[in-house]
Amino acid sequence: MLKQGDTVVCGLSGGADSVALLLVLDELKEKLGIRLEALHVNHCIRGEESDRDERFCSELCSRLGITFHSEKCDVTGTAREIGRSTEETARMLRYDIFSAYSKGKKLATAHNANDNLETALLNLARGSGLKGIAGIPCIRGNIIRPILTVTRDEIVSFLKDRGQSHVTDSTNLSDDYTRNRIRHHIIPLMQEINGSVIETSVNTLSALREENSLIESLTDEACSKCRSGSSFTGLTEYPPVIRKRCIARLLSENNIPYSFKRLEEADELLLRNGKLNVSDDLFLIAENGKIRLSSIKSQEEISYYGSLEMGVKKLYDGCSVYCERVECDNLKKIEAVHKNSTFYIMDYDKIRGKLIVRTRIYGDKIKLKGRNFTSSVKKLINEKIPSEKRNGLLFLEDEEGTVLAEEIGIADRTAPDENTSAFLVISFIRS
Amino acid sequence: MLKQGDTVVCGLSGGADSVALLLVLDELKEKLGIRLEALHVNHCIRGEESDRDERFCSELCSRLGITFHSEKCDVTGTAREIGRSTEETARMLRYDIFSAYSKGKKLATAHNANDNLETALLNLARGSGLKGIAGIPCIRGNIIRPILTVTRDEIVSFLKDRGQSHVTDSTNLSDDYTRNRIRHHIIPLMQEINGSVIETSVNTLSALREENSLIESLTDEACSKCRSGSSFTGLTEYPPVIRKRCIARLLSENNIPYSFKRLEEADELLLRNGKLNVSDDLFLIAENGKIRLSSIKSQEEISYYGSLEMGVKKLYDGCSVYCERVECDNLKKIEAVHKNSTFYIMDYDKIRGKLIVRTRIYGDKIKLKGRNFTSSVKKLINEKIPSEKRNGLLFLEDEEGTVLAEEIGIADRTAPDENTSAFLVISFIRS
Repeated sequence: MLKQGDTVVCGLSGGADSVALLLVLDELKEKLGIRLEALHVNHCIRGEESDRDERFCSELCSRLGITFHSEKCDVTGTAREIGRSTEETARMLRYDIFSAYSKGKKLATAHNANDNLETALLNLARGSGLKGIAGIPCIRGNIIRPILTVTRDEIVSFLKDRGQSHVTDSTNLSDDYTRNRIRHHIIPLMQEINGSVIETSVNTLSALREENSLIESLTDEACSKCRSGSSFTGLTEYPPVIRKRCIARLLSENNIPYSFKRLEEADELLLRNGKLNVSDDLFLIAENGKIRLSSIKSQEEISYYGSLEMGVKKLYDGCSVYCERVECDNLKKIEAVHKNSTFYIMDYDKIRGKLIVRTRIYGDKIKLKGRNFTSSVKKLINEKIPSEKRNGLLFLEDEEGTVLAEEIGIADRTAPDENTSAFLVISFIRS
Repeated sequence: MLKQGDTVVCGLSGGADSVALLLVLDELKEKLGIRLEALHVNHCIRGEESDRDERFCSELCSRLGITFHSEKCDVTGTAREIGRSTEETARMLRYDIFSAYSKGKKLATAHNANDNLETALLNLARGSGLKGIAGIPCIRGNIIRPILTVTRDEIVSFLKDRGQSHVTDSTNLSDDYTRNRIRHHIIPLMQEINGSVIETSVNTLSALREENSLIESLTDEACSKCRSGSSFTGLTEYPPVIRKRCIARLLSENNIPYSFKRLEEADELLLRNGKLNVSDDLFLIAENGKIRLSSIKSQEEISYYGSLEMGVKKLYDGCSVYCERVECDNLKKIEAVHKNSTFYIMDYDKIRGKLIVRTRIYGDKIKLKGRNFTSSVKKLINEKIPSEKRNGLLFLEDEEGTVLAEEIGIADRTAPDENTSAFLVISFIRS
């Protein structure tokens, strides 16, 4: 979880859990040979109370001599814009900020044993598989959860022993309705069956996570032997559990939702050959023990990748791109020229290095203009674009990533602002 | 689950679940090519209501033309005798009768999807591992559960469609307090989170059982490669999950209770060598990647196996056995001779074939005099005999199994009764 020389950024809300985590890390930092910082995200949704929490965290860190970062975000506005719940949006923005601050560092979050059992039960209720029922992982990428095996009671008594106060979130933002039903109703009932169910669950869930990891590593092996791109060869040699997890990964990477039943069907398909429609435009096709994910129109699949130059460039039959640098005061002229087609305007000087024009690639991401978070291009496309148009969509990228997604929008990073002196105008011409 | 030519004994309480199961099996029996019988166990604890249920089952079978067996058992008396709860005793006696009636046949029980989720939650609350959380197996030995994926609602509506009545157990014997908390309180709360949680759990639990089976089959493989008696060689080549399951099997076969923590300790031991006390008289001992279960006094372990003859026979240093055939009217004389030692009296003519005298063996079972169920000898010993005496205990077996367990008692099958004409008198002589 930690090694000497690591810098750990501790997510600090000011609540009991994160204050205890900060104290523990602070007490152990010399022994562990780590550097410690704290990061507070101010969701700005509780007015003065939000600011009080930020001050509390800042003062605590200043007393302990810990570097303190703080970032504000607009949860209410973003939630309205993207049509998600406040809880979900807060979580998304928080993890986006966490991610920005913890590059090359470890990020410690204060999930505890109670949170973990709640998550396991929530996932069981919703029908998740072993991975979900095993709860929250101790380590995911650079995120670590050092107090995942500590119960809420232990945390509260630790703080009491230290005489350390903490803040209480009056709206209990992180506790949505569903989690509260589990926390305040289901878990107390389980405690009537087993008084130390929280303590017991620490071992249960850790054993389940270990068992899930074993199956995951067998799946890794099978993938590395059988997988090439979107197809598997030789998967029939493996047990059904592994075959289904391999197929699940392929579907999941392509943002195709699946159920246990769907995986059963796919596995049967693999054994008997045939075709299974798994999303608007994609099929699983099995032939002679091979299985692959393929577009309905795979024969006529469109794919393009090349550098973008000024002027008009033909990309493929029926599709060209127009690209021009325009001084700010000439924008009116451009609007007149392109009045019958969609065009995109970016800040010419914000483009880094060479521009590439291409069709979509898997794993594409973009941080759109006016948004505080990065989106999956696949997700944006699936939400907005009819399936028959998706494969032909065009994208621009510079050295730092995707800057334009056709019919979706441009990147925040390259959007014009009041200091822009020249525009880059892009238009896609289709016949 | 079923193959052509199978005889299926359907456990029939007369409740909705088992009546639906009987109807389904009856409707499908020709298609499946099976023979169908029904077995009712009358627990005799609800007076007239118990007899009403038995009559209901008998009449239903007679109407359907299904062979009907019925057996009474004394739950209340047995529960008092063995100091267990009525629910537990009823279940034990029921399965004992099931087992007696289903030799060479399949026994179908009417567990449904609701029962299964309840069991999974109960096991999660109690801290069981993946196997327990995966719920009830569809097949265990010759026991099959054909309607395990059917919900209670579906069963009730199936019976309604058929216009088929069923009985209701006024005491709800099979539903103990704990299960009722889950059924009536926890599951309705989970249904608030996911209205179709029962239906969803069918797939979840079936996937978990499949994943557990995969890990079990990897454990089988490791055992067959590494295990010899009570020791493992080469286990360090396997992942921790498999190592721990191998050790868990060894402990479990020896009736040694273990926790996740204990398995962690045992696994650490395997990697670093040493000794771990796992029960009164047994240690796990790890040396150079080998691990074995060994008695504290393994050097002086007592083991004997040989045929029993009439007269006195020395078995090992300090232990002889005395054996005599005595006509009934001479019993008084015997009692006088053995007045200073414990002796055992069996019906001489009920002994089948040759008698063997031996020390304990693992897996030993005996159906004691006056009891309706078979007991594990290990369990009986652990309950009654101090650890230092256990290894030296002696047992007699005839061709049909164990007939005498020293300090425990004699088998029901060989107990004298009013028709006995000659006794077999056994006494163990220790110096």
